[in-house]
Amino acid sequence: MVMFGESEVGERVETLMMNGDQREENEDLVTPWDVSTSSATGINYDKLIVKFGCRKLRPDLIERFKSVTGSDPHPMLRRGLFFAHRDFASILDRKEQGKPFFLYTGRGPSSGSLHLGHLVPFIFTKWLQEVFDVPLIIQITDDEKFLWKDISVDEVKKMARDNMKDIIAVGFDLEKTFIFNNFDYMCPAFYENVCKIWKMVTGNQARAIFGFTPEDSMGKAAFPAIEAAPCFSSSFPHIFGNKTDIPCLIPCAIDQDPYFRMTRDVAPRLKYAKPSLIYSSFIPALQGAQTKMAASDSTTCIYLSDTPKQIKNKINKYAFSGGQATVEEHRALGGNCDVDISFQFLRYFLDSDESLESIRQKYTSGEMLTGELKKIAVEEITKVIMEIQERRKNVTDALLDEFLKIRPLKYKF
Amino acid sequence: MVMFGESEVGERVETLMMNGDQREENEDLVTPWDVSTSSATGINYDKLIVKFGCRKLRPDLIERFKSVTGSDPHPMLRRGLFFAHRDFASILDRKEQGKPFFLYTGRGPSSGSLHLGHLVPFIFTKWLQEVFDVPLIIQITDDEKFLWKDISVDEVKKMARDNMKDIIAVGFDLEKTFIFNNFDYMCPAFYENVCKIWKMVTGNQARAIFGFTPEDSMGKAAFPAIEAAPCFSSSFPHIFGNKTDIPCLIPCAIDQDPYFRMTRDVAPRLKYAKPSLIYSSFIPALQGAQTKMAASDSTTCIYLSDTPKQIKNKINKYAFSGGQATVEEHRALGGNCDVDISFQFLRYFLDSDESLESIRQKYTSGEMLTGELKKIAVEEITKVIMEIQERRKNVTDALLDEFLKIRPLKYKF
Repeated sequence: MVMFGESEVGERVETLMMNGDQREENEDLVTPWDVSTSSATGINYDKLIVKFGCRKLRPDLIERFKSVTGSDPHPMLRRGLFFAHRDFASILDRKEQGKPFFLYTGRGPSSGSLHLGHLVPFIFTKWLQEVFDVPLIIQITDDEKFLWKDISVDEVKKMARDNMKDIIAVGFDLEKTFIFNNFDYMCPAFYENVCKIWKMVTGNQARAIFGFTPEDSMGKAAFPAIEAAPCFSSSFPHIFGNKTDIPCLIPCAIDQDPYFRMTRDVAPRLKYAKPSLIYSSFIPALQGAQTKMAASDSTTCIYLSDTPKQIKNKINKYAFSGGQATVEEHRALGGNCDVDISFQFLRYFLDSDESLESIRQKYTSGEMLTGELKKIAVEEITKVIMEIQERRKNVTDALLDEFLKIRPLKYKF
Repeated sequence: MVMFGESEVGERVETLMMNGDQREENEDLVTPWDVSTSSATGINYDKLIVKFGCRKLRPDLIERFKSVTGSDPHPMLRRGLFFAHRDFASILDRKEQGKPFFLYTGRGPSSGSLHLGHLVPFIFTKWLQEVFDVPLIIQITDDEKFLWKDISVDEVKKMARDNMKDIIAVGFDLEKTFIFNNFDYMCPAFYENVCKIWKMVTGNQARAIFGFTPEDSMGKAAFPAIEAAPCFSSSFPHIFGNKTDIPCLIPCAIDQDPYFRMTRDVAPRLKYAKPSLIYSSFIPALQGAQTKMAASDSTTCIYLSDTPKQIKNKINKYAFSGGQATVEEHRALGGNCDVDISFQFLRYFLDSDESLESIRQKYTSGEMLTGELKKIAVEEITKVIMEIQERRKNVTDALLDEFLKIRPLKYKF
């Protein structure tokens, strides 16, 4: 069943499968609103790539990245934590040819403080901004959270501001970064693109892509175009002037793929550039890779606002262990890094490949005990969190307002 | 089946009947997008009032209007051309008590020039503005026309500007009138109310009210909230400051009722004031009352841009006659004013009740011939059109921009 006009191979087939009702038993659930699996090693990402119709990020493309940018790939890239993409090569082509593009990512503000899972795309995006030296746009979908949750506009806008401060603390460059929340940015240029997208997608198609039901509000059905519109440079005339053909690269978690699959189908019909994407896996919850961290449950995640003591306690108390029941058994049988959450965290945040491999070997052989592994994880996570907390102290309301200001960004194409 | 939370009696029952598919044969069709009937005397408005669940505008309410405002009712009011309402009494209460309210009306720009049918609500609204001395808000739904028609944003925005100039030529007071087109006005205050309305209405309910099908675009499903939002004073902070409780009175044709039935159900749940409404019938097409004038078919309507010669030719050539086949038969049997379009036009535009009654008697008795009746209609319509054309000459782009400007309006409450 062809859902859209000019779909790419692979993009058109699986859209209907997003509907939760049609999911097979034991199949992983990955939608923009829910992620879960029954497997202790987490989501089967290879299956998800086939289902979504995106591409695996293969070593040759990472090599190409190295040769085009002259940069070593970020640990999250070289370790396959950013593991899938759509059209990443075309962004590398543009970089090579000196043609303009921009970065776009975002967040739905669902809690007062970000947690480690939220930080992953932003840490990676900050690194991409440095490597590519291009403008970055960050959308805060406070309207989405208002529409989905039992929460007031004022409450969600307050959360949005707190979250934006956390994001700024990741270290983005003010001169090259525009942050906005939809409730405060909505303007004619943005709305015009929203309308253009609305006109291209039927209610049937939106239901197939996002799994909406007739009982869902009009707002849920209207929202996808609002996450799609920032893919188009004409939504930001203060940054891109009257240029409507500058494409973007979107680093985000793979659960956002439905939005951008839709956008990529719509773009050519609007004579706009298709967005490219680079997708991360989900950092697992402390309890194990069956779910991702949930800001609403403090025992599943490490917040940006946690103290070193809280981080230590949470990892020691909750981080699911791949070790054996007793020291003797562990020495004899060794631990399982694939399900061990402390080890999984280190894959994201430990910089040295040699150290990581050494830990893996020692823990797998039983030479390293769970307590020792957790201690390393505590140290590394604490280091990451403390660095951001340190910057967070300087993120005042005034600085936030600078990032939100309608203004040109500094870039040369 | 209760569609909404706090519906009024009569409002909840008939919403499902809006769906065109469920219409009985020979039933009148009245939706925001289509109006037709098989009856030569036009829509059966009494049946429509029952179907929509609004109220007939009865003589006692018109008397009350007279005593509260000290004004004689407009011919369109005293002749029952504005014939139905929702909560009109509560607006009269506020007028009596000196409490604030505003007028809100609008138009979807579907042609370069307005026709007589478009003018009716604006002529009446101008009169209401003078009588009530309150702010007036006019919404031009260029986004709606973009979403419904095969037309570009630029084309529809050009039409919007032309239409707004025609509307200004009706004679609105710049100091008390704010006109906006959605594509250029969309802003945070407006969007916040759109989101609040979106959240309150399910896709099922929207389908029941508006007859949308799953094949309709996401934009059609999103649009109703955008026509509803201007009912709430908080959509216009530059006019009403932070006041969120100022109600409006909406003069419009009855085909817009679905939008405001929805709005009235949503308003109390948002703690906003419910809009009041006063509804007009449709001025018939030249060919007869089975359809309303259609801007897309120049033979059905008289445009604001028509010359006196064109007006004369159109009425003489196309205006459906209630006369008999020959002069002899006409003298013997008399004409039928109920189906005669020239007479129907005079009901809207001839000021003197005595003259109108005299014409009715003479035509019905056969004393007046069709040619004579048409001559009077040509004179009266030409007078109305020429007056507006005269003012239209002075409506420059600069004056239009004054009406569009984000600014306070002059009013005292």
